[in-house]
Amino acid sequence: MIAKKMEGLVKGSSVIRAMFEEGKKMAKKYGAENVYDFSLGNPSVAPPEDVKRAFVEEVENEDPTFLHGYMSNTGYEDVRAAIAEHINELHGTKFDGGNIIMTVGAAGGLNVVLRSLVDPDDEVMVIAPYFGEYDNYVANANGKVVVVAPNPPSFQPNLDEFEDKITARTKVVIINTPNNPTGVVYSEDTLKKMGEILEAKGKEFGTDIYLLSDEPYRELVYDGVEVPYVTKYYANTIVGYSYSKSLSLPGERIGYLVIPSEVADFESVYAACGVATRILGFVNAPSLQQRVIMKSLKSSVDVSIYEKNRNLLLDHLKKLGFEVATPSGAFYLFVKCLEEDDKAFANKAKEENILVVPGSTFGCKGYVRIAYCVDYKMIERALPAFERLAAKYK
Amino acid sequence: MIAKKMEGLVKGSSVIRAMFEEGKKMAKKYGAENVYDFSLGNPSVAPPEDVKRAFVEEVENEDPTFLHGYMSNTGYEDVRAAIAEHINELHGTKFDGGNIIMTVGAAGGLNVVLRSLVDPDDEVMVIAPYFGEYDNYVANANGKVVVVAPNPPSFQPNLDEFEDKITARTKVVIINTPNNPTGVVYSEDTLKKMGEILEAKGKEFGTDIYLLSDEPYRELVYDGVEVPYVTKYYANTIVGYSYSKSLSLPGERIGYLVIPSEVADFESVYAACGVATRILGFVNAPSLQQRVIMKSLKSSVDVSIYEKNRNLLLDHLKKLGFEVATPSGAFYLFVKCLEEDDKAFANKAKEENILVVPGSTFGCKGYVRIAYCVDYKMIERALPAFERLAAKYK
Repeated sequence: MIAKKMEGLVKGSSVIRAMFEEGKKMAKKYGAENVYDFSLGNPSVAPPEDVKRAFVEEVENEDPTFLHGYMSNTGYEDVRAAIAEHINELHGTKFDGGNIIMTVGAAGGLNVVLRSLVDPDDEVMVIAPYFGEYDNYVANANGKVVVVAPNPPSFQPNLDEFEDKITARTKVVIINTPNNPTGVVYSEDTLKKMGEILEAKGKEFGTDIYLLSDEPYRELVYDGVEVPYVTKYYANTIVGYSYSKSLSLPGERIGYLVIPSEVADFESVYAACGVATRILGFVNAPSLQQRVIMKSLKSSVDVSIYEKNRNLLLDHLKKLGFEVATPSGAFYLFVKCLEEDDKAFANKAKEENILVVPGSTFGCKGYVRIAYCVDYKMIERALPAFERLAAKYK
Repeated sequence: MIAKKMEGLVKGSSVIRAMFEEGKKMAKKYGAENVYDFSLGNPSVAPPEDVKRAFVEEVENEDPTFLHGYMSNTGYEDVRAAIAEHINELHGTKFDGGNIIMTVGAAGGLNVVLRSLVDPDDEVMVIAPYFGEYDNYVANANGKVVVVAPNPPSFQPNLDEFEDKITARTKVVIINTPNNPTGVVYSEDTLKKMGEILEAKGKEFGTDIYLLSDEPYRELVYDGVEVPYVTKYYANTIVGYSYSKSLSLPGERIGYLVIPSEVADFESVYAACGVATRILGFVNAPSLQQRVIMKSLKSSVDVSIYEKNRNLLLDHLKKLGFEVATPSGAFYLFVKCLEEDDKAFANKAKEENILVVPGSTFGCKGYVRIAYCVDYKMIERALPAFERLAAKYK
């Protein structure tokens, strides 16, 4: 017998597995080139060449006992210092290695923060649409999720509702910008106002509310859009970062947390996150990956490939009359369905061999997410299928 | 404010940090070569050369999008199949890739199993002396730790007490052989009897009790001792393995779980562990490490180096009259203190610049753990210091 709280999750995961199996069946039936799978957020652009060189150089030249050995649970000191300096150069901040904790991807980092801060029944606020895994991460820490409803068509957070839903038990607010699933980047104005609201509410309740900014898509932005660095707008901000997308290393599980010295109870929070890294079983971020990152700080995948994908699909969908949030970042389009029921719409899409994820998975009914981190040619081949899908509703 | 349940852990970790800082101070004061640090279980033997070659080959020859990308949360299919086959060759078992889940080290694997199986207030049994982190892993899953008292001088588990303490709420029993901190290998007779007891108790209570065998030290054995493969003695056994010690890759966080098809509710348990890998924030074991492991299955560190260390230190301590459990494996000696209070004894050792860990950290007062995964020459230099320590009690 598995744990009761796992039963629902296992059922949910078999639904996803069933969808995946069906996709494979469709590929067999219609030919792989005639199935248009936009369901997965798996980077399609290759990692930069200098990341490859860094891997080889580290393994060939570094003392292996050092390279593959334990270090402090928070990560190698020189790696943390180099990352802090790199962030300072980009964003004019003043971090040092003592503000950084290396993590097993952003997912690992988020769990570390939640375990460190959340007591049973503390509230963790999320803003829909949001990455569904947050529900599980909060449950791991025995917290309660509070959802701020989606705010279409801009998908900037509804700040009135945000303010109303903050209570004396609100411990953490998670934001994700550029956003999965909308691709929307929160504006500087949004972040300023969120900061002011959090500041005022913290004073009102006499509590410390931490803003946790989940930023795996920070570097994937288009049209020259800037992603404001969130620590500038609210002192109690912790940043979770991952190299999954910026260097296309999702399988390697490497990221970091930034815990600014300004956050409330900084020393306890930093120490707790170090302890949580250990006791949650991560122990430390993979050591080789840490050292490779230090050598690859200025590298990036070729973002123009994603931009080209986005432009092709976005133009086509707009021409067909679809309503789409302006996706300035990440590699997703969040498209309004042509009927109310997003699952029914996703099924209609499947009839045209288009695989997309219903918005209800992200706490936002009536939309579907289209992940365009795929081959450009697949998008070209899919365009007539989207046309047929639109035609069904005419 | 950090979470209340983290406060004690942070305090505890600052005690350890203080010890570590004191060690560094001692090295400054007396010279690093005159401080004998036996406190850390950090492998001192270099990883095998073919592991290095495997890292370089994978990075140079494999498609990078595949090599560094997401795979199933349970790990690459071919890696899992190869590991199953390797275990079958060694132990005559009949696993396939569908019995294996790749994990972020053994620590990650243990957390995955506990999260999958344990409901709040379920009991998880551990046998003292035991790795203190188990307490935290069980707490992560909201379980309750039940401790079977130490059984010196053999440190084979006290099976009467083991039997007595099994209740209707016992969900998991964790064993660790070769053992940290004693170096003792549980005998085939011990494992058979444990299996029979678990079988009978499960029937008595109408429950499924899972035996979780934590085996990072499996390959580190001496004197030709065999470590019985635990799945043979009890059907409901899950094995947690790590390459931290056998390949000296502790920083790389790579290991696996074996979930035999014979365990109760196999399909749910395997699916739940896959889901737990994802939702706990591991997502998957580091991808490059998975592929390197597949190429390095027959490799091992040079265990004779640890054996030489053990023999030197063990002979010397025995000559000095110390009582030591027979350490057939791992890289630890568990030595009876010359006074009742193990912390006081560890402090006396520190006066001779010897750093060891009090047994109470492992739930076993009156002993200290000496980690001999250190340079042979440091052991040679430390011998007179142990002599002076013994002389204090004459």
